[in-house]
Amino acid sequence: MRSNAVALLTDFGLHDWFVGVMKGVVISINPDASIVDISHEIPRQNIVAGSFALAASYSYLPVGSVTAVVVDPGVGTRRRVLCARSAGRLFLAPDNGVLSGLMAREGRAKLVSVENDTYFFKPVSSTFHGRDIFAPVAAHLSLGVHMEDLGPEIGDCLRLEIPSPQTEGDLLAISVQWIDGFGNVITNCPSVLVDEIEARWGGELSIGAGAEAGEAQVDLRDIKIAASYEAVGPGQLLAIRGSSGYLEISVRQGSAAEILGIAIGDKLHLGRKV
Amino acid sequence: MRSNAVALLTDFGLHDWFVGVMKGVVISINPDASIVDISHEIPRQNIVAGSFALAASYSYLPVGSVTAVVVDPGVGTRRRVLCARSAGRLFLAPDNGVLSGLMAREGRAKLVSVENDTYFFKPVSSTFHGRDIFAPVAAHLSLGVHMEDLGPEIGDCLRLEIPSPQTEGDLLAISVQWIDGFGNVITNCPSVLVDEIEARWGGELSIGAGAEAGEAQVDLRDIKIAASYEAVGPGQLLAIRGSSGYLEISVRQGSAAEILGIAIGDKLHLGRKV
Amino acid sequence: MRSNAVALLTDFGLHDWFVGVMKGVVISINPDASIVDISHEIPRQNIVAGSFALAASYSYLPVGSVTAVVVDPGVGTRRRVLCARSAGRLFLAPDNGVLSGLMAREGRAKLVSVENDTYFFKPVSSTFHGRDIFAPVAAHLSLGVHMEDLGPEIGDCLRLEIPSPQTEGDLLAISVQWIDGFGNVITNCPSVLVDEIEARWGGELSIGAGAEAGEAQVDLRDIKIAASYEAVGPGQLLAIRGSSGYLEISVRQGSAAEILGIAIGDKLHLGRKV
Repeated sequence: MRSNAVALLTDFGLHDWFVGVMKGVVISINPDASIVDISHEIPRQNIVAGSFALAASYSYLPVGSVTAVVVDPGVGTRRRVLCARSAGRLFLAPDNGVLSGLMAREGRAKLVSVENDTYFFKPVSSTFHGRDIFAPVAAHLSLGVHMEDLGPEIGDCLRLEIPSPQTEGDLLAISVQWIDGFGNVITNCPSVLVDEIEARWGGELSIGAGAEAGEAQVDLRDIKIAASYEAVGPGQLLAIRGSSGYLEISVRQGSAAEILGIAIGDKLHLGRKV
Repeated sequence: MRSNAVALLTDFGLHDWFVGVMKGVVISINPDASIVDISHEIPRQNIVAGSFALAASYSYLPVGSVTAVVVDPGVGTRRRVLCARSAGRLFLAPDNGVLSGLMAREGRAKLVSVENDTYFFKPVSSTFHGRDIFAPVAAHLSLGVHMEDLGPEIGDCLRLEIPSPQTEGDLLAISVQWIDGFGNVITNCPSVLVDEIEARWGGELSIGAGAEAGEAQVDLRDIKIAASYEAVGPGQLLAIRGSSGYLEISVRQGSAAEILGIAIGDKLHLGRKV
Repeated sequence: MRSNAVALLTDFGLHDWFVGVMKGVVISINPDASIVDISHEIPRQNIVAGSFALAASYSYLPVGSVTAVVVDPGVGTRRRVLCARSAGRLFLAPDNGVLSGLMAREGRAKLVSVENDTYFFKPVSSTFHGRDIFAPVAAHLSLGVHMEDLGPEIGDCLRLEIPSPQTEGDLLAISVQWIDGFGNVITNCPSVLVDEIEARWGGELSIGAGAEAGEAQVDLRDIKIAASYEAVGPGQLLAIRGSSGYLEISVRQGSAAEILGIAIGDKLHLGRKV
């Protein structure tokens, strides 16, 4: 199933012409391409963040679409460029782990190493593969080129160690994997795991940090897990099963990250309400 | 008259994948959709600002287009979702007043309460109706679904009190409703009202603030209303009938907001030049 | 050769609805337009920066495309509006020098002064020609209107003095013309000139600043010109033939501009490695 949708996820920001040039290359090759910007504000060269943003968004892209993921601190080195087919969609990315979140959710993907330079924009620079490799190859894929034409199939790709929730006695150790623009703190605890634990432990759960967690500076023990922002008043903390499929800490009409002084990577605990 | 144009106006910012996911949902449903970003930088959860930005932009969108306005601090609560037809265009928005500026300009609109979940992306989360309600419903409307299919017609919606210019003796009390990225100060005084007052009062008008206005820290009494930036030298203040239809204070090749220390909501006076 | 591609390059930023309104105007006129944002973050009213961004990006846009360049501190004054045909593409811009980089690269262009108001959005405001002139004229050009219909052909346009590398004894005096979002320092020294000098002088080259250059605060004499970021370790400085066709100073996985304290306009020296 072919789609004209070409999605872009980069850490290029919007200050420069880099994203615009990628789009120019795409529509020069496929004038009917429909380009979707997932985000260009991935923290610079932060592969873990790029992996999470992709995992949170890919399933909302059209089946048959092509996504170019360009968070690529190794541009110009010998790192491979990958094309992956998973969940009925195609993904182009450097082989640096940025597909880890996608692979973890989908379990498997067909992978090729992109080596055939037929579809590259030549001469290929050593610093801007977004323009010279990712954009033109994505455009050709959106025109119906087969991923098998791009290079040899490979067995696996580099995968990041993504910290997953760990049982520690009566608590579940979790961590912060994203802070959104509203200040919502997105943990690495899947909402389905919250469901399971609620069923197993019974009673209400709460999130704790502080002395036990050894990281955050505020004790969160009283943050209640609620069904919607409505459960608390304006300015109050709550935890919620977030729209990305993970437990989030929020402040109704405010920024949880700011109030709690929490950053990506910080540790938290999920436990039974005391 | 049907259009494939789907416009988005949100306070989501561009840091996260939220806008990208909305676009993915739209083109998954209508692959021919032409998506226009009005802005995603409305100050977070600021309904008044969202209302003003919509009022300043909607008339430039294609007739037949659908605009999703997602400035929605009440997401997940029982606030209604509205579909309005006005000025030959369709608008989806939470029933929180964000359509007030549009309604004030157009006077009337046909309104339905969006309750039919046929076109929702399910399961509907409690925190991201942009993805789960606004984007898919907008896409279906752009495909030709009738607004009458979305839910029951309703008589009115929540409307904000938008401060309008008030006569105070020989002066007109006005206020600041937007400050743009160049630092231009957009007041709530319609340019047509400036015309009327000029005709009635005769002579030149000027804008005053400071002690009389009781808010701003600079006396603006000498700001002259001019026809174009050319009327003053670089770095000089002037007032101008702005492109949004309101009187604006500007600095030629500079930021009026910065020079005057003025913020949204501050009060000003329009009076006869002394 | 006609294309539906309409590219936009402005200093409007994304905070306001200005870019969105331009897009609304474009697709109201040409519903099949494919709009490409080159960038909207050109430093406000900085014509030199706009000229450089255009020069670095135009050749990646589709042949037959129309680009509206709106960096226009003289909006509302008597400055002309230009339509240029060059490199198989059309460009609309104020006659303020913002086409200088393009003209310098291409050597020649056909130019008309845009005076026929048939295609303008009326009434034309005195402050927002992006909406009232550039967007509607660009849209009509993308529909096949001939540039000759826009106004009389003219011989030349305003051109900026763009500083070019100058030989000073054994050194080449160069300067900084852009700093990108990664902190890469893009000089005005074309990569082909680096090739020539390497061939002529033999041996390795390096970039110097500091006392000799009289501007930057750090002595850069030891920055080696390398083929890719791989040549140095993380956090190390290098110079590289950049993707825009100019010599750049970079830090692998870091910001060169920050480490060196360098800004646009600063002077540097290219010399033989000592």
